[in-house]
Amino acid sequence: MAGPETAKPAPEEDDRPTVETADEEELYGPSEELMENVSAALAEGDIPQVEALIEDLHPADVADLIEHLEPEERQLFVQITRHVIEAETISHLDETVRDEVVEQLGPQALAEVVTELDTDDAVELLEDLEPEQQERVLQSVPVEERVLLQQSLTFPEDSAGRLMQRELVAIPAHWTVGETIDFLRSEKELPDDFYDLFVVDETHKPAGSVPLSRVLRSPRATRLSELMETELRLVPADMDQEAVAYLFRQYALVSAPVVDEAGRLIGVVTVDDVVRVIDEEAEEDLMKIVGASDTDFHAPAHIIAWQRVRWLVVTLINTMIAATVISQFQETIQHTVALAVLMPIVAAMGGNAGVQVITVTVRALATRDITPQSNLLRIVGKELIVGFLNALVFSAILGVVAAWWFGHVELGYVLAAAMIFNMVWAGMAGTLIPLVMDRLGFDPAIGAGPFLTTTTDVLGFFSFLGLATLFLV
Amino acid sequence: MAGPETAKPAPEEDDRPTVETADEEELYGPSEELMENVSAALAEGDIPQVEALIEDLHPADVADLIEHLEPEERQLFVQITRHVIEAETISHLDETVRDEVVEQLGPQALAEVVTELDTDDAVELLEDLEPEQQERVLQSVPVEERVLLQQSLTFPEDSAGRLMQRELVAIPAHWTVGETIDFLRSEKELPDDFYDLFVVDETHKPAGSVPLSRVLRSPRATRLSELMETELRLVPADMDQEAVAYLFRQYALVSAPVVDEAGRLIGVVTVDDVVRVIDEEAEEDLMKIVGASDTDFHAPAHIIAWQRVRWLVVTLINTMIAATVISQFQETIQHTVALAVLMPIVAAMGGNAGVQVITVTVRALATRDITPQSNLLRIVGKELIVGFLNALVFSAILGVVAAWWFGHVELGYVLAAAMIFNMVWAGMAGTLIPLVMDRLGFDPAIGAGPFLTTTTDVLGFFSFLGLATLFLV
Repeated sequence: MAGPETAKPAPEEDDRPTVETADEEELYGPSEELMENVSAALAEGDIPQVEALIEDLHPADVADLIEHLEPEERQLFVQITRHVIEAETISHLDETVRDEVVEQLGPQALAEVVTELDTDDAVELLEDLEPEQQERVLQSVPVEERVLLQQSLTFPEDSAGRLMQRELVAIPAHWTVGETIDFLRSEKELPDDFYDLFVVDETHKPAGSVPLSRVLRSPRATRLSELMETELRLVPADMDQEAVAYLFRQYALVSAPVVDEAGRLIGVVTVDDVVRVIDEEAEEDLMKIVGASDTDFHAPAHIIAWQRVRWLVVTLINTMIAATVISQFQETIQHTVALAVLMPIVAAMGGNAGVQVITVTVRALATRDITPQSNLLRIVGKELIVGFLNALVFSAILGVVAAWWFGHVELGYVLAAAMIFNMVWAGMAGTLIPLVMDRLGFDPAIGAGPFLTTTTDVLGFFSFLGLATLFLV
Repeated sequence: MAGPETAKPAPEEDDRPTVETADEEELYGPSEELMENVSAALAEGDIPQVEALIEDLHPADVADLIEHLEPEERQLFVQITRHVIEAETISHLDETVRDEVVEQLGPQALAEVVTELDTDDAVELLEDLEPEQQERVLQSVPVEERVLLQQSLTFPEDSAGRLMQRELVAIPAHWTVGETIDFLRSEKELPDDFYDLFVVDETHKPAGSVPLSRVLRSPRATRLSELMETELRLVPADMDQEAVAYLFRQYALVSAPVVDEAGRLIGVVTVDDVVRVIDEEAEEDLMKIVGASDTDFHAPAHIIAWQRVRWLVVTLINTMIAATVISQFQETIQHTVALAVLMPIVAAMGGNAGVQVITVTVRALATRDITPQSNLLRIVGKELIVGFLNALVFSAILGVVAAWWFGHVELGYVLAAAMIFNMVWAGMAGTLIPLVMDRLGFDPAIGAGPFLTTTTDVLGFFSFLGLATLFLV
């Protein structure tokens, strides 16, 4: 372990640029002040002022700025800045806003944007367009790049083939460090930034990768074959992006070579794209578990309302089933109204315990803490014990509370028994539902929450009211 | 946009190593077969076989293997491999298993592990130890590294100071590419891999950064000051890791310089650490929203049960409040038992709608789709409209169902009115609760779910049973 490495030559006078420490606000995208100034300049139609304000902004920050503008301002902003706006800005926009901007720019301008972007970002833009719109844009892209883009678009959505960029540096293994550096210095058509060189054989199959830091620290005469990492994590172009994310996380990769069916190197996935994927996948799990759809924050209200209908329908069906169960016990409730007061408690405690378990299980599957090699019996068994331990504690507390509240000792016993039953079930169902879904090839997170809470509601009401009918009436 | 860049010299015979395309199973950590072989070898006490099996495995995969072993096997495995096990393997283990292994290795072996690791991984290991254990381990670490580690440990948990590694390459701005390459070739004590050079002034303040690819493609005479990126995203050492993750995501960074209070360069955060943070933060949001604790998957049952008690207590209090509300209407329920059948529907639809809204809002805050610059009135207003649209549809459906089911038209009206009321409330509360929490400086996700569903339960029962008391009794 080494300390900070610094070469310390004698200080020298020079006019090197200085850098200010960014304050907290600057770190978080466009500042409030800037946004207000842009709005004001837009209102006055002061075009040079708008351009001056955004001149030094990072494209990602300009994109944030565009998203935060009111719709009318946004249109005006795009109109004013359409000739200075950077391609990267467009690719940073969220989907709904991007659709608006793309519409406004028109196919010709969009083709220029697509041409300027790296293939991965260009593909991300293109894949969201309607087929005919996509076709029109592609027609205006230079043929050489069009072919690469069309090829990338043939890979399935959310696959490595869509994620990869085609721009990469491939070098034959017998080259030396010196030859490689000379090549890099003379070659004009290199990717903007890259982190690894890929060593390929004569059939363009990857044979190894060399981190740039190794090239830099090795003598000119060293052959790349001596420097290269041969334990390559090859990514087939049709690999799912979730699996790609796993590789990057597991092996702390910065870039990974993408190969076609014949094993030839056709692209590279870089970590910045993977960061986006990891974010997306975690969010997807979250949305599925709580039964929210993967909504676009900037979509208009009626679209969002429609996106949420599906899960509300699921909830509706769930609660109708639960209501049907309750309706079987109307006489019992009429006899002891206290049951109506206490029954939501049994359902809610089971539901909450179950959702805890299911969330932990879904995440364990996602992060591969649970794999096909895991001992499933041990996992389910452990959750049963957890459920039983908590059930004992909480049923004892609530049994006493109920008995005291309604002056009815048997009511306390019934409540306690129903709670133990429901919470143990919650522990079992919370592990089994996602595990079975996963084994059957479904997404373990899909509807895990709503499906589980239906079972805990139904069982909670049924066991509580059923036991009450047997012992209290 | 350029196609794949390949230098294409004449093919040449050489004995460079070849690489096989990994099949799907190989891509996912240790294979089932390998696990079984290791278990078998352990059972037979065949030490050379165990060592041979894990020899070519990546440390992250060995860590997975250790996690998947049964507890007794695990102990045996660590005992057998303790002299060949890599430091990196230890740092890849999940917390509970790592604690076990660390316990078994003892402070002396642990000190060797810590010495071998990069500072960021070493700090991660050390920060989980008990203070006296930490002290004992640090005593056995060479003094030079001990000072760096102790310094890192002074920064708050989850801050950039804990996340950074101290190993970095800092170069004066007036150096040329040639001087830099010569320095890198001669210097022995460099970090293993690095992606950017940091240019510092004579007070060791960062003045710019140079991606290695730029160094490689520039002529030897070029000064670093001409190549460097001066738009640095400086990370103060006490910055929260969530903010660091935001910077990496927003600006697609691979590494970022960490500075102390005086603005001096003291470390570097690299993207592999940030990937882990992004994963953790997304998981934390998920756990908080569903009211599950951030549990360690490998912890024993009684510990997990205890970790979940907190949220079950919250649920208990919530449902007790809801039960108290219901108990005020016992006479009404006795009069119309159908109310007991239907009341969970009002509560559940409101709760589900609210959790959808709150999840979207918490994620929008986390991904900074909502910022202090956002128009909050517009956001809340939009959710109110969404809530109202869905409420109209579902209250109409359920009102008709209830009226038909119990042959009681007024009951249908009451149900529909209560549902509209509760779902509009859910839309408003689902946005306002996290926004207010965020403004007050709290984590918007904390208890968002349980807190919200208490309000939708209470309001659902109160509005439904209250309206019923007014109009049906």
